[in-house]
Amino acid sequence: MEAMGRRAREAARTIARADTSTKNSALQAIGRELDRRRSEVLEANGRDMDAGRKNGLDAALLDRLELNDERIDAMIEGLHQVAELPDPVGEIDDLKFRPSGIQVGKMRVPLGVVGIIYESRPNVTIDAASLCLKSGNATILRGGSEALHSNGAIAACIAAGLEEAGLPQSAVQVVDTTDRAAVGALIAMPDYVDVIVPRGGTGLIERVSRDARVPVIKHLHGVCHVYLDDRADREKAFNIALNAKTHRFGVCNAMETLLVAEGIADEILPRLAAAYREREVELRGCERTLRILSNCEAATDADWSEEYLAPVLAIRVVANMDAAMDHIAQYGSGHTESIVTEDYSRARRFLAEVDSSSVMVNASTRFADGFEYGLGAEIGISTDKIHARGPVGLEGLTSQKWIVLGDGHVRQ
Amino acid sequence: MEAMGRRAREAARTIARADTSTKNSALQAIGRELDRRRSEVLEANGRDMDAGRKNGLDAALLDRLELNDERIDAMIEGLHQVAELPDPVGEIDDLKFRPSGIQVGKMRVPLGVVGIIYESRPNVTIDAASLCLKSGNATILRGGSEALHSNGAIAACIAAGLEEAGLPQSAVQVVDTTDRAAVGALIAMPDYVDVIVPRGGTGLIERVSRDARVPVIKHLHGVCHVYLDDRADREKAFNIALNAKTHRFGVCNAMETLLVAEGIADEILPRLAAAYREREVELRGCERTLRILSNCEAATDADWSEEYLAPVLAIRVVANMDAAMDHIAQYGSGHTESIVTEDYSRARRFLAEVDSSSVMVNASTRFADGFEYGLGAEIGISTDKIHARGPVGLEGLTSQKWIVLGDGHVRQ
Repeated sequence: MEAMGRRAREAARTIARADTSTKNSALQAIGRELDRRRSEVLEANGRDMDAGRKNGLDAALLDRLELNDERIDAMIEGLHQVAELPDPVGEIDDLKFRPSGIQVGKMRVPLGVVGIIYESRPNVTIDAASLCLKSGNATILRGGSEALHSNGAIAACIAAGLEEAGLPQSAVQVVDTTDRAAVGALIAMPDYVDVIVPRGGTGLIERVSRDARVPVIKHLHGVCHVYLDDRADREKAFNIALNAKTHRFGVCNAMETLLVAEGIADEILPRLAAAYREREVELRGCERTLRILSNCEAATDADWSEEYLAPVLAIRVVANMDAAMDHIAQYGSGHTESIVTEDYSRARRFLAEVDSSSVMVNASTRFADGFEYGLGAEIGISTDKIHARGPVGLEGLTSQKWIVLGDGHVRQ
Repeated sequence: MEAMGRRAREAARTIARADTSTKNSALQAIGRELDRRRSEVLEANGRDMDAGRKNGLDAALLDRLELNDERIDAMIEGLHQVAELPDPVGEIDDLKFRPSGIQVGKMRVPLGVVGIIYESRPNVTIDAASLCLKSGNATILRGGSEALHSNGAIAACIAAGLEEAGLPQSAVQVVDTTDRAAVGALIAMPDYVDVIVPRGGTGLIERVSRDARVPVIKHLHGVCHVYLDDRADREKAFNIALNAKTHRFGVCNAMETLLVAEGIADEILPRLAAAYREREVELRGCERTLRILSNCEAATDADWSEEYLAPVLAIRVVANMDAAMDHIAQYGSGHTESIVTEDYSRARRFLAEVDSSSVMVNASTRFADGFEYGLGAEIGISTDKIHARGPVGLEGLTSQKWIVLGDGHVRQ
């Protein structure tokens, strides 16, 4: 791993200064290679699938692992999309003259070397590599052992594409061992790795956060809330509460707990409950909810912290917005919360006071997404507060350095 | 420490939503308390000074520890200045409509709880507390054991000022134990502390970086370079090289290594060397420097990585700008580097390619400073790449969350 780190650090200088068209050529070339070597990639994936079936991987994991022509097309399309995004590197902001006569501003620059640790889905190899490449970073990718052959075949396409564009192949390195010690080494090399992005289950992310000796951009939990205020427009409340839970179940920006002001609970909960049940959502309510809804299980304290990622919803009736914000502060994961209200002052307070990566008024939590926010792509959603918060796109893979333009200026 | 952390986390919600005038009132009130309790603070400091002398602290440490009326005045003046800075909290940037109809932007918000670990100088207690307070963060301050009584007396002023402004006293907590285990506990409570800022010697900072379980904003070394290009204006080159080294010696933005293009070394080095010697700067040169300068020691490889913080300068003659940038990449600490040149393309490349927190053209490295950059104040200079880079002011103590304004919008 250390040799890999040293090569990455070296390649980082070259890739950082590569111009936009060279980086875009590499992205396009990688797409062409993926298309050309389609059968090799599918054959390698077939070997991973066989091994997975033999090792008893469950159906969901096998589905995430599987590649087919359609999924390879989507990877190629993703490469084109990243090539079309504006290049963040070199952007200069706020260049201003100071009283001393110097001109001071900020220039956006790559972070350097990004380590990405992920599980099963081989398309992450292309996603992550393309975003790091476009943002001028060198990357070390460590995929799941179950996707070893698939990732190896994709890595060969990346290497060929980089070479065609005249960029060093070590700008994107894929760890080709299933040795678990490789992860431990990768997250403990501050001299060679500038940031680690773990993508996967809670176990992986907790382990990486605990043991990392370099900064980590991570997304731990998505326990998202919608609060229906008693001054909510009833139609907006109904539509948002329904969409936030049922648009998709297994995603981190789906609502997991619905908070309802007591002033409208009697009126809105029965109608909502009927709509949820139609979509086979299991409801778990607080005591007051149970008094309004029949056919609803009692929620336990554990439900308030639960990220179901499934057709299950916790419901709590609260006295008012302050009680809702207290609940969110206590149980929320800092991902995304939304208030539905027509009250100006409450909307303003909720926006200012809720400490989450996305805070919304009269919108579904499902909008918390890099594409919906206009980032063009996303490497993940961060629930941390330092550096990048919420959906992380190209900009989150860069930092800003100070630049000073003088004309012989010295400090007096 | 855990109880302290819990109180800080609680206070963080209150201080985060405090409006600008309340925070400013608290800053002014703390200033008044410092003035009123001047004799108590000086008496407490006297006890620390006595203990320091008894324990054989050296003169430099005793000087940093000492308070007098002038230094208390400076602390009060600092509080006024922070009160006058614009409040970063709540600033909304880039609020734009998206094709879906939602309006997406970013709101600047406090980080939450900031832990600050520092040595000897009691004025840091006021500096750090005031910046954290203004940026809406709760703070836990852990000063050096040698300043225990001074910091306690200052803490009493802070508590009284917070109370007068109606803010919770636990918004600023000063650890009142000299137990070294307190540091270990403070840096390992991710539930209660959002970021740690260590300020002090290399030993402290390395220990904190190694053991911290929360993000760290740190400044490790300042090995700053000036490169005199062969297309430099000779007068600018002379003035900047002299100022960067001799304006002040013991500061992190002082030049430690001078790189000179071989094309102008013969011409400029003798004149510079004479000026340095007049200011009693010891010179240590590479082989080629030694051929030009008599009365110059030979530099060893260790000199190129050394942060002298003293009237010592390493000098190396290099073939050209690329060689200078290679030297900086190998030996630099990522703090501040400056090129002196009249060549447009070289200036542009140096700015883009040198990977340091501040990169300058035709200006002295001594400008790398929060006040000179217009931040109004600085909590430190970060040589990290994540989150805050270079001088860290109020903005570095905040992050941006996403806000979404809708009108009943749901994902399709």
